[in-house]
Amino acid sequence: APFCSKEVNYGNVSDFLINMIYLLMALYKEQLLFTPNCMKFNLPLPPLSRLVQKAELTRLSHTFLHVPQLHWIVVEDAPQPTPLVTDFLAASGLTYAHLHKLTPKDRKLQEGDPSWLKPRGAEQRNEGLHWLREMGAAAEGKEAAALEEAVVYFADDDNTYSLQLFEEIRYTYRVSVWPVGLVGGMKFERPVVEDGKVVRFHTGWHPNRPFPIDMAGFAVSLRLILTNPQARFDGDAQMGFLESSFLQHLVTMDDLEPKADLCSKVLVWHTRTEKPKMKREDALQKQGLGSDPDVEV
Amino acid sequence: APFCSKEVNYGNVSDFLINMIYLLMALYKEQLLFTPNCMKFNLPLPPLSRLVQKAELTRLSHTFLHVPQLHWIVVEDAPQPTPLVTDFLAASGLTYAHLHKLTPKDRKLQEGDPSWLKPRGAEQRNEGLHWLREMGAAAEGKEAAALEEAVVYFADDDNTYSLQLFEEIRYTYRVSVWPVGLVGGMKFERPVVEDGKVVRFHTGWHPNRPFPIDMAGFAVSLRLILTNPQARFDGDAQMGFLESSFLQHLVTMDDLEPKADLCSKVLVWHTRTEKPKMKREDALQKQGLGSDPDVEV
Repeated sequence: APFCSKEVNYGNVSDFLINMIYLLMALYKEQLLFTPNCMKFNLPLPPLSRLVQKAELTRLSHTFLHVPQLHWIVVEDAPQPTPLVTDFLAASGLTYAHLHKLTPKDRKLQEGDPSWLKPRGAEQRNEGLHWLREMGAAAEGKEAAALEEAVVYFADDDNTYSLQLFEEIRYTYRVSVWPVGLVGGMKFERPVVEDGKVVRFHTGWHPNRPFPIDMAGFAVSLRLILTNPQARFDGDAQMGFLESSFLQHLVTMDDLEPKADLCSKVLVWHTRTEKPKMKREDALQKQGLGSDPDVEV
Repeated sequence: APFCSKEVNYGNVSDFLINMIYLLMALYKEQLLFTPNCMKFNLPLPPLSRLVQKAELTRLSHTFLHVPQLHWIVVEDAPQPTPLVTDFLAASGLTYAHLHKLTPKDRKLQEGDPSWLKPRGAEQRNEGLHWLREMGAAAEGKEAAALEEAVVYFADDDNTYSLQLFEEIRYTYRVSVWPVGLVGGMKFERPVVEDGKVVRFHTGWHPNRPFPIDMAGFAVSLRLILTNPQARFDGDAQMGFLESSFLQHLVTMDDLEPKADLCSKVLVWHTRTEKPKMKREDALQKQGLGSDPDVEV
């Protein structure tokens, strides 16, 4: 591997004995385009794409390229795969599946809706689960045995993942959990562990939700997903209950497996990328001097 | 390199014949802490650090780990190296130099100043140039010859870099230039190339600055920096003139070497990370229920 300049030791993982990680990522943020803030800027954008999308996919892919046995499942909120994402994935060097599932119009945020009104990405994550279950049903022999050991993690396109996180995720028997940094108006949220068991949650909001955990804070064994076909994300869930709507089909709090040194380390951060300002672009476009639309950004 | 799961081909670069890239990064954003917005939130922060700093360094390091022959020069705006950055770099797997240079108080943004009032990172970038020149003066024989071929690039902690960019940078004779995405209120800014030469600049603002180029849009041969010891960043430069203050010691527009397919491809994006909201953290702290300050975020 000539382009990997350093060997980094992330623990005692053998390259030959590691479980597959299915990283399911819903690209649902296109709908942000329809919020009043974007309307105001009158962005010169093609529909169903976001200006920072290629940048975010680029830096995420650099992280994922360091993770052995990773299979990236990308689900676009689009009527068909977009050329930008298709070309990006083909050149990424990663193993991936490229799916798409358009959110029905009545489930989408409408102009003027606050972003928390409807859960986002539920349709796309369910499409990914469907793909995993189809694959599971078709697998036989050694392949089926390997799937028994695989783990599913729900990634997001602007979060930041340490490489150590993936080594923690890899050994998930049912559902593993860990802290998430910079989430929910907090420095971090985390499961509170006593005597090796999760007993409650450190969170700034609704600690009594069934599972007050951000999407970035848990992973699920593929075996559990395959043996519980009813487990899916509820697109009608109240704000903050999307994760619970899925997890309550699979485990109880007592079953949760604390990772990241008994939930004492932050290995993933809920970073968000600013929407770029397009004020000057807009002004120049009006004079016919805008940026060349043929250059992909 | 067992943790590099795929071999990616970024072009016709031989691993044995590549120039060193010195990536100089000024960590100057600590001063944002003193803006009114942060005062309002009353962030529970140690001085001279930012909440997203570790996350940003983490994902940047994943990009840099793919680049052969990279030497990362990190210059903190601090009276001494901070433990967070020191520990992070030691564990990163990268080759680096960790410097520090505190911005004098009269050069720092004060409470209430708009962020564009004073150029940021000038002191730190000059400190990095000083380090390079000391190293250049001390080098002899083969080492000195290798430095002749090396290239210097000024990185930023929230930008997004494609891996292809570094292969373009590597072959810089004097000063190379290319487009930067999502910068200056534009989809992209770029040098305009005619007959292989840069003839003007596509930018939304002051196109007649000597070099209307963002810091992310050029690289300089180390030889040129060593043979022009007067070239430095002017901390008193007007907004938008910091890059020009350095480059005008080194080249004319006629000398610029267009990269990225004659400046037709966007290979770097000026992404920005949102400041995380700490509303609930603040409320919980007042009840003595804040996040454990011993957990590094």
